[in-house]
Amino acid sequence: MSAADPPGDAPLLIDGLQYANWSRAIFEQMRRGGVSAVHVTIAYWEGCRETLSNVGHWNRRFAEHSDLIVPAHSAADLRRAREAGKTAIIYGFQNCSPIEDDIDLVEVFHALGVRFMQLSYNNQSPLATGCYEQNDPGITRFGKQVIAEMNRVGMVIDMSHSAERSTLEAIELSRRPIAISHANPASWAPALRNKSDRVLTALARSGGILGLSLYPFHLKDHSACTLEAFCEMVARTVDSMGIEQVAIGSDLCQDQPDSVVEWMRNGRWSRATDFGEGSGANPGWPKPVPWFGSNLDFRGIAGALAGLGFAPPEVARIMGANWLRFFEQGFTPE
Amino acid sequence: MSAADPPGDAPLLIDGLQYANWSRAIFEQMRRGGVSAVHVTIAYWEGCRETLSNVGHWNRRFAEHSDLIVPAHSAADLRRAREAGKTAIIYGFQNCSPIEDDIDLVEVFHALGVRFMQLSYNNQSPLATGCYEQNDPGITRFGKQVIAEMNRVGMVIDMSHSAERSTLEAIELSRRPIAISHANPASWAPALRNKSDRVLTALARSGGILGLSLYPFHLKDHSACTLEAFCEMVARTVDSMGIEQVAIGSDLCQDQPDSVVEWMRNGRWSRATDFGEGSGANPGWPKPVPWFGSNLDFRGIAGALAGLGFAPPEVARIMGANWLRFFEQGFTPE
Repeated sequence: MSAADPPGDAPLLIDGLQYANWSRAIFEQMRRGGVSAVHVTIAYWEGCRETLSNVGHWNRRFAEHSDLIVPAHSAADLRRAREAGKTAIIYGFQNCSPIEDDIDLVEVFHALGVRFMQLSYNNQSPLATGCYEQNDPGITRFGKQVIAEMNRVGMVIDMSHSAERSTLEAIELSRRPIAISHANPASWAPALRNKSDRVLTALARSGGILGLSLYPFHLKDHSACTLEAFCEMVARTVDSMGIEQVAIGSDLCQDQPDSVVEWMRNGRWSRATDFGEGSGANPGWPKPVPWFGSNLDFRGIAGALAGLGFAPPEVARIMGANWLRFFEQGFTPE
Repeated sequence: MSAADPPGDAPLLIDGLQYANWSRAIFEQMRRGGVSAVHVTIAYWEGCRETLSNVGHWNRRFAEHSDLIVPAHSAADLRRAREAGKTAIIYGFQNCSPIEDDIDLVEVFHALGVRFMQLSYNNQSPLATGCYEQNDPGITRFGKQVIAEMNRVGMVIDMSHSAERSTLEAIELSRRPIAISHANPASWAPALRNKSDRVLTALARSGGILGLSLYPFHLKDHSACTLEAFCEMVARTVDSMGIEQVAIGSDLCQDQPDSVVEWMRNGRWSRATDFGEGSGANPGWPKPVPWFGSNLDFRGIAGALAGLGFAPPEVARIMGANWLRFFEQGFTPE
């Protein structure tokens, strides 16, 4: 394959999570990099009203860059985008903050195209526990109701930033497979954000999907992680979870100022500064790995996976086809 | 004493919690009943914006009924209200919903006169666990920050609807005494909303205060509870907690339609109906006990306590002086 391939014939590349400082340059890179679809974050700590403005900002982007990007509410939308040579944009929340205290907002946001919602982001939420809390009581009363509602309307439960017990219970309680859109196995890179073998096994058994992350703090040796080491981890994860349950969720946060990672970590919940995966000495964004800095770099990963011995249909699954199948099953009302 | 006493000389009567369907008739009963001050609920599930409207509704009430009620932000305000023959109104939240995700709203709402905030209401909140959750992990990351901030600005932590571990941790983490504004000992009336001896002992040792509740679901034999049985419980609680730590928090919800108890129980968090302390067969408000139905009935309780052998200064403490001392210590910035 090459950048000259007509877009419709390009292999499917789907990224399970990005939160970039969106610009025409980035959307052009998506096209040049052959990226068919991206799940983009439209809320971390934002409440309902602020999230609606973020939807509004995306409406403006779709109008301004209609030659490059298009909103997608379904797998069919994604296929149409691909035929038109555009990148499909799928909305997701990294937290339950946009629904505030109102279960009815699940369906309202689904109507606006939101297809993923994390039940908690690092901290305890009204629904579930985040991975940085000391204790995890599991899914709450409100959480159980919301899981049923997300199942009903076709919004994917994402537990990327949630804690262990809450994640296991979400897998168990959800009638539909769930996603961990961006994380890696903790056995490969110990981090509170990465997932235990127990979680990954339960996720795979339930038909769920794991998007492997390229965010340096989730990688072995962080910014010094090699492409080879990453691909070996992909192979090991495929061995344990199965070829259909593994995909990519890069967590690419391109061109963002440090103020954004401060917002992601601190929201408005703390008067002291929380450094999350960083530290006082290293408070900003981690340095990207040299082999993944933009949407141009997915093909390099695909190539390295092929080089490691994955057959072309296997590479295709990991790089996009698994997400497409998951979207097909997950985005429609029951 | 009698209703003809000049208000300034009437014994202090302070109620630690009411949520009535406010009307001139109720404010007149407060005056006739000699009630010096009431902590009124202005939020159960309301977010910031809705709570501001509730503050606005109170501004209208203060303007319309300025001969009967006056807002109080301090113990000094309460004393002035008393001298003027008016009932002092003190705002409180039964949940942390009004601050949403923003710790800075603690100080903002303090400036508007909010002096109590419960960290959770029945369910898990971002700060603490509610008494109807199955599991209680204790105070969360956000919760620890908010406790420190409430301590700083002078907003009282109220754990009336919180679960056991969260309550014990709040007592421990708070640098200032906390309140359980409306609940009874579970050893007297088993209910998830009532408090264990362990909690009450920790509360008393830390200088905290318990407002004993007259809400039928918190009473032994519910609506059939006798005044004598209630007063005997008061005596036992004074014996175990000390005369300075026990007060009244009636939880009077006068003239409210059943839709309000449905809102209190269900908020917007459930598609199924939650009946709380009630049941499908008994979904509405419980029938009040015959000896407590309005602000006219506090004097009867005071009389019954005296009849049981409490000395006048002891009755005065329980019926109001303890709350006044607690307000004096709790409402000012550190």
